Amino acid sequence: MKTVAIVGLGLIGGSLAMALKGFEDYEIVGVVRRQATADYALRHGVGDAVTLDAGEALGRADVTFLCIDPADIVRYLSDHRDHFKPGSLVTDVCGVKGAVMEAAGVLPPSVDFIGSHPMAGTEFSGIEHAQADMFQGAHYILTPRPESAPEHIALLERMAAHIGCQDVVRTTPERHDAIIAYTSQMMHIIAVAVCDDPELFGCRGFEGSSFRGCTRVADLDVELWTQLFSLNRPALTAALDRLADNLDAYRAALREGDEGLLREKLSFSAARKHCLDLGARPASSYYV
Amino acid sequence: MKTVAIVGLGLIGGSLAMALKGFEDYEIVGVVRRQATADYALRHGVGDAVTLDAGEALGRADVTFLCIDPADIVRYLSDHRDHFKPGSLVTDVCGVKGAVMEAAGVLPPSVDFIGSHPMAGTEFSGIEHAQADMFQGAHYILTPRPESAPEHIALLERMAAHIGCQDVVRTTPERHDAIIAYTSQMMHIIAVAVCDDPELFGCRGFEGSSFRGCTRVADLDVELWTQLFSLNRPALTAALDRLADNLDAYRAALREGDEGLLREKLSFSAARKHCLDLGARPASSYYV
Repeated sequence: MKTVAIVGLGLIGGSLAMALKGFEDYEIVGVVRRQATADYALRHGVGDAVTLDAGEALGRADVTFLCIDPADIVRYLSDHRDHFKPGSLVTDVCGVKGAVMEAAGVLPPSVDFIGSHPMAGTEFSGIEHAQADMFQGAHYILTPRPESAPEHIALLERMAAHIGCQDVVRTTPERHDAIIAYTSQMMHIIAVAVCDDPELFGCRGFEGSSFRGCTRVADLDVELWTQLFSLNRPALTAALDRLADNLDAYRAALREGDEGLLREKLSFSAARKHCLDLGARPASSYYV
Repeated sequence: MKTVAIVGLGLIGGSLAMALKGFEDYEIVGVVRRQATADYALRHGVGDAVTLDAGEALGRADVTFLCIDPADIVRYLSDHRDHFKPGSLVTDVCGVKGAVMEAAGVLPPSVDFIGSHPMAGTEFSGIEHAQADMFQGAHYILTPRPESAPEHIALLERMAAHIGCQDVVRTTPERHDAIIAYTSQMMHIIAVAVCDDPELFGCRGFEGSSFRGCTRVADLDVELWTQLFSLNRPALTAALDRLADNLDAYRAALREGDEGLLREKLSFSAARKHCLDLGARPASSYYV
């Protein structure tokens, strides 16, 4: 029997502990700090076992998932650098990769680190919102180091398939952070900015699915997203500058009352979305 | 047997013709321009009957729903002003109310006009995407005229309940247009502006549910939305100015690297969204 340690049983760690159960010959062990979380995990079958003894668990884990906030990951890697089992794989699940990969530089050469980012989540947080089907249809992004063991990459690919991910995308930390600034972080900034509108509470009774869809993520985990945004500041700022320009072009067409230009711009944007066709992609492992 | 005429069997008209079937003692008659649409409607049971003879249908309809583009509504009201049955109710389903209510001024005093806006739709258009359950859980907004007959308002409220709407919201055309600029039109401008980003096609494999949610409506009906935006230009421009300000405040906090300010702003916005709680509202009829 091999061991997967999942450090932190929150929304994502808890979901991962549920989803990974039954994976090959691995026992799924949650590593938590609070007894209340351990009790909840045991009562609800979140993982196969749970412990408060991080040192012991890390020392026997063949794979360790760090499912804690980015700043905590940086600290944890440094604090526990000598506790991880030699030859083992350490990975994480957080939404920035550059800062985490850099922090992993403290690990001894005998410990392999590969960045992971399963692109799943909900607007809730905490183990009580964890779901075994959290990762169904999600992308699993991997940022290996040049020296990462191919068998560790293959292992994470099998785990991604086991938890229901639609595919595994391999890329660099830099590329990950640049594109995530657009596809994920910008969406969260839009959602909170829309909720800053003075009409927010007057809109009850007038909201449709587009409003619900756009603002769904606004009630976010403040500490987590403060860290994610701060750790990816240059890429996020650049993405938001591009958004401001694209919004300004629409605002100008409207301000000038140029219906022809507006129609032309809408045709252009709608055609781009039409071509994007996010739905129809085969499940496979590929590079970007 | 009374008659409801539904002029235009597109996404919304078609869905309405399906959803209204079985309403009290009304026959649901689709009024279309193209034989192909009539054939499709008959083959798929969209409404109880269908005709290409608008004059005849309007002359015997007790209720007429205009389910065509806003500019077509304006033209239709003028072209057919003398064809509507005296004492009947005429309404529409489109997303701007000021321009439509104004155009309804051409109707003779014997014809009652009440603006309607069932807040439902999908990113598709055309009768082939019509669904009987399109309006389930949606808000049905009414903008009656001061002289509108109470029994006509009550009739639309019963129809809204029959097609599955969660509630009926009564308001003025001005208030409707101001708030819809925020809750609906702004969401569509955001979606298309996000799709104008040069990273759009590079984002495959990196998109999660927030990206899908925010951009879902970007592949919109260009002609319809050009009209809706143009007919509500002042309110939409004002809403987009507010959005730009709110985005700028986040951009400034990020640009300055002020993590404390960022955390504070996220707490503020997330708390607003948390308080909004769009989910838990009783089904009822009320004024805004």
